[in-house]
Amino acid sequence: MNLSAYVLDQPRPVATPIPGVLHATWAGSRDGLSTLSLWRQSLAPGGATPPHSHPREEIVLCLSGKGEVHIDGAPHAFGPQQTVLLPANVPHQIFNAGTEPLEMAAVFSATPVAVALPDGSALDLPWSS
Amino acid sequence: MNLSAYVLDQPRPVATPIPGVLHATWAGSRDGLSTLSLWRQSLAPGGATPPHSHPREEIVLCLSGKGEVHIDGAPHAFGPQQTVLLPANVPHQIFNAGTEPLEMAAVFSATPVAVALPDGSALDLPWSS
Repeated sequence: MNLSAYVLDQPRPVATPIPGVLHATWAGSRDGLSTLSLWRQSLAPGGATPPHSHPREEIVLCLSGKGEVHIDGAPHAFGPQQTVLLPANVPHQIFNAGTEPLEMAAVFSATPVAVALPDGSALDLPWSS
Repeated sequence: MNLSAYVLDQPRPVATPIPGVLHATWAGSRDGLSTLSLWRQSLAPGGATPPHSHPREEIVLCLSGKGEVHIDGAPHAFGPQQTVLLPANVPHQIFNAGTEPLEMAAVFSATPVAVALPDGSALDLPWSS
């Protein structure tokens, strides 16, 4: 597969149809990758992702702010200089647990990225992944 | 596979046997991942990686500094707010092209990460990958 370019600029996250979730896809299938996606997201104070899972592993880098990821009903706090590991097929939900935007980069070992809701149904993402 | 933890601290890169290359593995097989590795590296001014390739795709996030990646003999400049995409099996070499440390995070769709030298021989990494 051919890459669109070796060096890409990083667009700012912009508002999405998911309330409180700002998103930018920094790299993925549209750029010619076949096994990696890189997202940049911002969660507004009070905001959260829907509860969801992916069929592949995910790593989240916290850039700034205070977050909480809920897995199996348990909260796991995270902040800057911390990394969150999310196993494949494990439902999780990320909350902004602070008063500033929660700034994150997320990487997946798949592109595009599939998202499943807790009932197993697919969530159609409102962005290229 | 079981994760060691959902939330990990991010150790600072430390000197390695490769001159000018500081490294910290932020996530990988040792943490229970099976398809992703996350590295944090710093290249000293004047420093460079060896020319090398990986059997899987890689994404490099430039955090600060000025870099140059050489692919097929051509230099590609990059800096903060830019992302570098590296195809599987394509030899590349990253140089610090500035006067400050070049700070990067790199992610691979494999763990551990295999590294090949230009002659095809394996490079044994001096860190857990």
